Amino acid sequence: MKYQYTVGIDLGGTNTAFGIADASGKIVSKGTMPTTGHESVAAYVLALNDRIAPLMEQVGKGNIAGVGIGAPNGNYFTGKIEFAPNLPWSGVIPLAQMVSDALGLKAWLTNDAKAAAIGEMTYGAARGMNDFVMVTLGTGLGSGIVSNGKMIYGHDGLAGELGHIIAERNGRKCNCGRKGCLERYASATGIVLTAEEWLAERKDATTLQDANGKLTARMIQEAAFAGDTFAIALYDYTARILGQSLADVVALTSPEAIIFFGGLANAGPLLLEPLQKYLEYDLLSIYQRKVKLLLSQLADADAAILGACAMAWE
Amino acid sequence: MKYQYTVGIDLGGTNTAFGIADASGKIVSKGTMPTTGHESVAAYVLALNDRIAPLMEQVGKGNIAGVGIGAPNGNYFTGKIEFAPNLPWSGVIPLAQMVSDALGLKAWLTNDAKAAAIGEMTYGAARGMNDFVMVTLGTGLGSGIVSNGKMIYGHDGLAGELGHIIAERNGRKCNCGRKGCLERYASATGIVLTAEEWLAERKDATTLQDANGKLTARMIQEAAFAGDTFAIALYDYTARILGQSLADVVALTSPEAIIFFGGLANAGPLLLEPLQKYLEYDLLSIYQRKVKLLLSQLADADAAILGACAMAWE
Repeated sequence: MKYQYTVGIDLGGTNTAFGIADASGKIVSKGTMPTTGHESVAAYVLALNDRIAPLMEQVGKGNIAGVGIGAPNGNYFTGKIEFAPNLPWSGVIPLAQMVSDALGLKAWLTNDAKAAAIGEMTYGAARGMNDFVMVTLGTGLGSGIVSNGKMIYGHDGLAGELGHIIAERNGRKCNCGRKGCLERYASATGIVLTAEEWLAERKDATTLQDANGKLTARMIQEAAFAGDTFAIALYDYTARILGQSLADVVALTSPEAIIFFGGLANAGPLLLEPLQKYLEYDLLSIYQRKVKLLLSQLADADAAILGACAMAWE
Repeated sequence: MKYQYTVGIDLGGTNTAFGIADASGKIVSKGTMPTTGHESVAAYVLALNDRIAPLMEQVGKGNIAGVGIGAPNGNYFTGKIEFAPNLPWSGVIPLAQMVSDALGLKAWLTNDAKAAAIGEMTYGAARGMNDFVMVTLGTGLGSGIVSNGKMIYGHDGLAGELGHIIAERNGRKCNCGRKGCLERYASATGIVLTAEEWLAERKDATTLQDANGKLTARMIQEAAFAGDTFAIALYDYTARILGQSLADVVALTSPEAIIFFGGLANAGPLLLEPLQKYLEYDLLSIYQRKVKLLLSQLADADAAILGACAMAWE
């Protein structure tokens, strides 16, 4: 192999994480810096270069194949971030080109969930798989669908919006302007919304009652791990809605596995055990007992960097 | 090009159509024979060979690249028909191998909707497209999803069951044993079921009242073309349900176009105009005004043969 390393950049709404990994997925150096507080995108990219350039020197720039960037609303085809609601910069930002110019390396951009899928395919739970679905359960629900060994970008680079398929017709209002989107139910935000609705309607005894109004998904997870039946039922409900939607995804793409990543997935069996049950129940019989539900095999802290690094090997 | 022709076989529940086409999609010879009435699958394949062999002689067997077969429940990966409920033969039938042995040519098998998708990609409305969805609206609803220029078969060859995504939770009972599958609404069968439900519940003046109990999709189409508002409303309802489900398919695969084929699609604007309206309404904004709704460009009578012929070029 000509090159030994790639650079990965994970651009989040608050922080940007970056690192350099070798072909085996070992991160040889990494760092973080704030995404916010820069005068402009150009100033952000300069600051990023100031941090990454010394790391590149350490491994020798000539040994680096390129740079992968995972960013909200990142479009692989254009290399641009397009109208990302949670970033300090508005409109369309040609970030891949800007980073490429600054670092003097080829750069590729996609959204965070697709970068995670490529990371799993290259270094994680999807190694050797040609057909799988990556689901990231964070503030929202992101996804990357891989078929025939290739990421499905769609004709415009915007495929994979599993978070915005309709889970509940005329259901909860979504930030996208429509109603009932899956991510309003199956995400950290979604499970909190469910908890708030239930606390308003039901009289279950639960330790979460005290936190009503300032509930977080982490509190729900801790309560569930501590045996709070109300919190456990919240996971069960979330799994039911997610299972129904995933049964439809399986009917369309027949994946070998569905791989979960992100805050809500950290609950592990609390989510995956009921999910397996509901998914099997909802599946068309030809798919039953064939789809593996797996957790990401990339360490939480490094997964986003590794996903971005993996893009640059493609 | 070494070869000039391919053989296509369209195996239906009642009849089998076959033909030989050149690389431009011109059918140079064709024929039909009954699917039923043979002592065994082996006898059927022998009879088929008796009919196709003379056609192959005419163009010179050495000029033929291979044989494509479209069949219900056909699995591309195994070359087998698997538990097809509407064929005279039960269980698993290694049809690709049997046809290959009989005709002395390589043979490929897939289901009819995927063959139709390959036909559109090779000769029809999807020429030059890398990302599109084929929807066949016949007795049931079949589909073939193409991404990155490749058919999505899934890990087991069984992807593309759009007819069995859930359109209506706890809705109409489906032959698959579940409830609310899209094909129970959006298909020739589905529109008749809607008509029967409405005739039982509503008092609209309609010429279809007389045919209640022996309604067909063709009758509904003829009534709608003649201006029957009840029949037109049946198409509108069918389009609404179909539009909702297709909005989810677009969110997952972001196709350039959705191409329709089959009896119900023959209604043309009766179905496609309301469908366009509902789909646009249901789409996430990033996809709006970008997805073309097209009718198949393959002549009805030849489309299935051409789809099968196209497979053998792949």
